Amino acid sequence: MPDSTYDALVSHVKTTRALGQIAGLLSWDQEVMMPANGAAARAEQAAAMEEVSHQRRSDPRLADWLDELEAADLDAKQAANVRLTRRSYERTCKIPASLAAELARTTSMAQGIWAKARAANSFADFAPSLEQIIQLKRQEAACLSGADGNVYDALLDDFEPGMTVAVLQPLLEGLRPRLSALREKINARGAKQPVLKGTFAEDAQMVLARQLADNLGYDWNSGRLDQSVHPFSSGTAQDTRITTRIDTADPLGCLYSTVHELGHALYEQGITEDMGLTPVNNHVSLGVHESQSRLWENQIARSRPYCDWFAPTFLAAFPDCGLSNGDDLYRAVNRVETGFIRTESDEVHYNLHVLLRFELERELVAGELDVTNLEAEWNRRFERDFGRMVPDAANGVLQDVHWSVGLFGYFPTYSLGNIYAAQLNVALCDQLGDVDDQLARGETGQILSWLRENVHAHGSLYAPTDLMQRASGQELSAEPLLNYLETKYTEMLDL
Amino acid sequence: MPDSTYDALVSHVKTTRALGQIAGLLSWDQEVMMPANGAAARAEQAAAMEEVSHQRRSDPRLADWLDELEAADLDAKQAANVRLTRRSYERTCKIPASLAAELARTTSMAQGIWAKARAANSFADFAPSLEQIIQLKRQEAACLSGADGNVYDALLDDFEPGMTVAVLQPLLEGLRPRLSALREKINARGAKQPVLKGTFAEDAQMVLARQLADNLGYDWNSGRLDQSVHPFSSGTAQDTRITTRIDTADPLGCLYSTVHELGHALYEQGITEDMGLTPVNNHVSLGVHESQSRLWENQIARSRPYCDWFAPTFLAAFPDCGLSNGDDLYRAVNRVETGFIRTESDEVHYNLHVLLRFELERELVAGELDVTNLEAEWNRRFERDFGRMVPDAANGVLQDVHWSVGLFGYFPTYSLGNIYAAQLNVALCDQLGDVDDQLARGETGQILSWLRENVHAHGSLYAPTDLMQRASGQELSAEPLLNYLETKYTEMLDL
Repeated sequence: MPDSTYDALVSHVKTTRALGQIAGLLSWDQEVMMPANGAAARAEQAAAMEEVSHQRRSDPRLADWLDELEAADLDAKQAANVRLTRRSYERTCKIPASLAAELARTTSMAQGIWAKARAANSFADFAPSLEQIIQLKRQEAACLSGADGNVYDALLDDFEPGMTVAVLQPLLEGLRPRLSALREKINARGAKQPVLKGTFAEDAQMVLARQLADNLGYDWNSGRLDQSVHPFSSGTAQDTRITTRIDTADPLGCLYSTVHELGHALYEQGITEDMGLTPVNNHVSLGVHESQSRLWENQIARSRPYCDWFAPTFLAAFPDCGLSNGDDLYRAVNRVETGFIRTESDEVHYNLHVLLRFELERELVAGELDVTNLEAEWNRRFERDFGRMVPDAANGVLQDVHWSVGLFGYFPTYSLGNIYAAQLNVALCDQLGDVDDQLARGETGQILSWLRENVHAHGSLYAPTDLMQRASGQELSAEPLLNYLETKYTEMLDL
Repeated sequence: MPDSTYDALVSHVKTTRALGQIAGLLSWDQEVMMPANGAAARAEQAAAMEEVSHQRRSDPRLADWLDELEAADLDAKQAANVRLTRRSYERTCKIPASLAAELARTTSMAQGIWAKARAANSFADFAPSLEQIIQLKRQEAACLSGADGNVYDALLDDFEPGMTVAVLQPLLEGLRPRLSALREKINARGAKQPVLKGTFAEDAQMVLARQLADNLGYDWNSGRLDQSVHPFSSGTAQDTRITTRIDTADPLGCLYSTVHELGHALYEQGITEDMGLTPVNNHVSLGVHESQSRLWENQIARSRPYCDWFAPTFLAAFPDCGLSNGDDLYRAVNRVETGFIRTESDEVHYNLHVLLRFELERELVAGELDVTNLEAEWNRRFERDFGRMVPDAANGVLQDVHWSVGLFGYFPTYSLGNIYAAQLNVALCDQLGDVDDQLARGETGQILSWLRENVHAHGSLYAPTDLMQRASGQELSAEPLLNYLETKYTEMLDL
C-alpha cells in the first residue's frame, strides 16, 4: 500500500471536509442566529467558502493520487475513500468555480428573500430570485450531465448517489394509487380524530421537546436545540444541532419536528469515527438520512405503544389540552387531514405532497415550466391531487425553503426515505422481537443500537441502495411502507 | 491607473476578508453556542480556515500585482489598499502555513481547556497548553522579526501596526506613579462608595442591557446580544455581535460590559462601506478599537450626567438595590476597590492590571520566564503592585482568556485605548461644546456622529497614531487620561 500517497489524499480531504462543516455552520447560523442585515455579507462568505472548497475538491494533485491509489491494494474503507474522492473530484471538475461560487452567493441571498416573500404572501417577490437560481442550476446540471445525460438525474445524484429518475419515478408514482385509495377510505369512514384545544406556551413546548430528546438518547454535549422558521438538523459527529418551530396553537409540530431532526442527528452521531473525518465516515445519502428521521418520527414516536408511554408526560405538561390518555394522543398525532403544508402533513398525505414537488421541479429543471407559470401550476395540480383550492402562496408554492437554497432533486429523497424507513422497521422488529414492549416502556436503546450497527456505523462504505438492502434484507420496494400505512390506519380507524 | 490589476487585487482580498469574517464567526460560535464536545472538530475547522486563508494571503500573484500597483497612480484609498495588502502579504509569507494552521488548531482547543481549568481553579490543568502556545508564538515571532528584531514587537505589530515596545513601555509605565498616587489618596480618604444590595435576576439584567444598547444607538438588525464567559464583540459591518455576562449579585458588570462591547460594535458599524470589504474599510488597530469601547463605557456611561439620566430606569428595574438617585449610581459605578479581576476593575486600577500582564508576557515571549514559574510570578508581582495576596488561580493567572487564544501583544492595546479615549474625549467635548447637557438628556447621537466622522469613517486609511492625532488634534500622550482620572475622582470623593 502506498502509505504516503494515501496519507496525502486523506490529509487533503479531511481539510476539505472541515471546510464543508464550516459552510454548514454558516447556514445554521444564518437560519438560527444571524441578524437580518447580515445577509449580504453572509452571501459573500458563502461564495468565498465555495470558492476555496471548490479549489480543494478539484485540486489537480487529486487526479495523480487517485490514479495511483486506484491501482493499489487497499482495504475496503480505504478503497471507499478513494472511490468517494474520485466521485467528488469528477463532479467538481465539471462545474466551473465561478458558477459554484455564484450559486452559493445567490442561494444564500435568496433564503432571506424567500422568507420575506412568504411572510408577505407574495410569490412575485420571490420569483426573480427563483428564476435566477433555476438558470444557475440548469447550467450546473448541464455541466454535470454532458450532452446526452438527464439534467434532473445530474442534480438528484448529488443527494442520492446512483439514483435516477428512471428508477425513482415509477417507485414514487407507484405510491399514489394506494395512498389515494387509503385517503378516500379514511374520509369516507369519517372517524373523529381528536384535535388539541387551547394555547400552548413556548417554554412548556421546549421543555417537553427536550424531555423527548433526552428519552430518545440525544447527547446535549454534542448538540443543541434551537428554533428556526424551517426545522432542520446540521453538523456532524460531536456537534450535531437540531431546530424545531413553535406554534402556540399546536405543540405536536414542535415535538414531532424535534423527533424528526433528532433522527437525523442520531444518524450523524452514530457514524463511526475510526477513520476520522474522511469521506467514508459520512452519511451516504439524503434518502438514507430521511429514513432515520422518519423512522424515529413515525414508526417509533407515532406508534401506539410509544404514545401510551409518552401520554402521562404530555398530559402533565398540558392537562387542559382536551386529551385524556394514550389512545387520544395516538389518534391526535396520527390525525389525517387534507392540509396544504407538507411538513405538517400526516403520513397518508405526505408522499402526495412530495410527488407534486418532484413533478414540478423536473419540469422547471428541464425548462418545460416557467417560473412565471409556477404558482398557477402548483395550485392547479394541488387541486387535482388533493381536491382543495390553495388559498395563497404561503400555503402553496412558497411554503418550502428548498428551492430558495437551490435544492432541486432533494424532495424525492423524502419519499425514498419513507420507503427505506418502512423496510428498516420490518427488519428491526423481526430481529429485536419485542419492539412494541420496549416502546411501551419508553425504551429505545435497542432500536438505536440496531440502527447504529446496521446503518449508521457503515457511513458511506456501501452505495445507498446496497446499504439499505443489507440492513433490511430486502430489495428496494414500496410494499412495506404501503402495508404499514394501510395496517396502521385500518386498525386505528376501524376502516 | 491599471484598472484590471487593481480590480484583480481587490477581488482577491475581498474573498480573503470574507474568510477572515468566517473565522471570526467560528470563534463567536465557539464561545456562545457550540456544545462542549464540538471542540475537537472546531479546532480542525479553525486550522482548515487558517490553511486556506494563509494560502490566499501569500498567493504569489499578489507579489506581481503589488509590484505593479506600487508604481501606479492611485487615489488615497486605493493606495491604502495596496499598502495594507503588502503588509499582510509580507507578514504572511514569513510564517509557514503549517505553523499558522497549528497555531489555529492549538489555540482553538486551548480555549476549552482554559475554561475548564479556570472553573477547576487549577493552573496546572492549563499549563501544558499554554506552554505549547508560547512555543508556537515564539516560533511565529522569530519568523516575523528575523534575526535582529524584537520578538515582542513582532507580535504587538499584529494588533497595533507600527507600535513598538520602545514607544509603548515608557508611555504605559509612565501611568504607574500618578495612578498609584491617586489610589493611595483615595484609600487614605476612606470615602464610602455605595455597594449594590440584593439579587438581580438574569432576565431583568438583560432587559436593562438591551435598553442601554437601544439608547446608545445599537442597531439590532445588524447585531445581537448574547452571554459568554468573557464578554466580547465580533463581526463587521452589518453583522456585529456583542456578548455580556451575568453576575446575579451585581448587575453593573452586565451593563457596563454591554456598553463596552457596544463601543466596539459601533466602531465596526461606522466604518465606511464605500469600497466594500477591502482592507482600507477595516478597523485600524486594537488600540483604536479599545479607545471606542472605553470611551463609551467610561467617559460616557460612567459620567455623572449620564448616570443621572440612567438612574430612574435603573432604579425602576431594581428598586431595592440600595441606591436612591443618580449620585448614588454615579458613585456605585465608579467605586474604587483593589480587586483581583481586570475586567471588573475600576478606572484607577485598570491600567495597573494591564501593566502586570504586559510585563509578564514580554518575559514569556522572550523566553525569560517559564510557564512553570508563571503562577508564582503573577502572584508575587500582583502583591508588589496591588498590595494584596492573590487567593487562587481563578482570581489570578487564569482570569483572562487571551493567552489561551494566543493573544500575546494584545493586552497593552487596552491601556493604549484608554489613553486614546481620553484624548478623543477632550477633543469631542471641545468641539461639541455641551456634551454634559446632552448626556444629562440621555442623548449620545452627536457624540456618535463625531466619532463616526473623525474616527470610524476613516477605517485603515491612516496609521493608528496618525488617525488619533488627526481626530484628537494632539500628539500621543497620557496626560489627558491622567488628568481626567485625577479630576474625576478628586471631585467625586472630595480628595
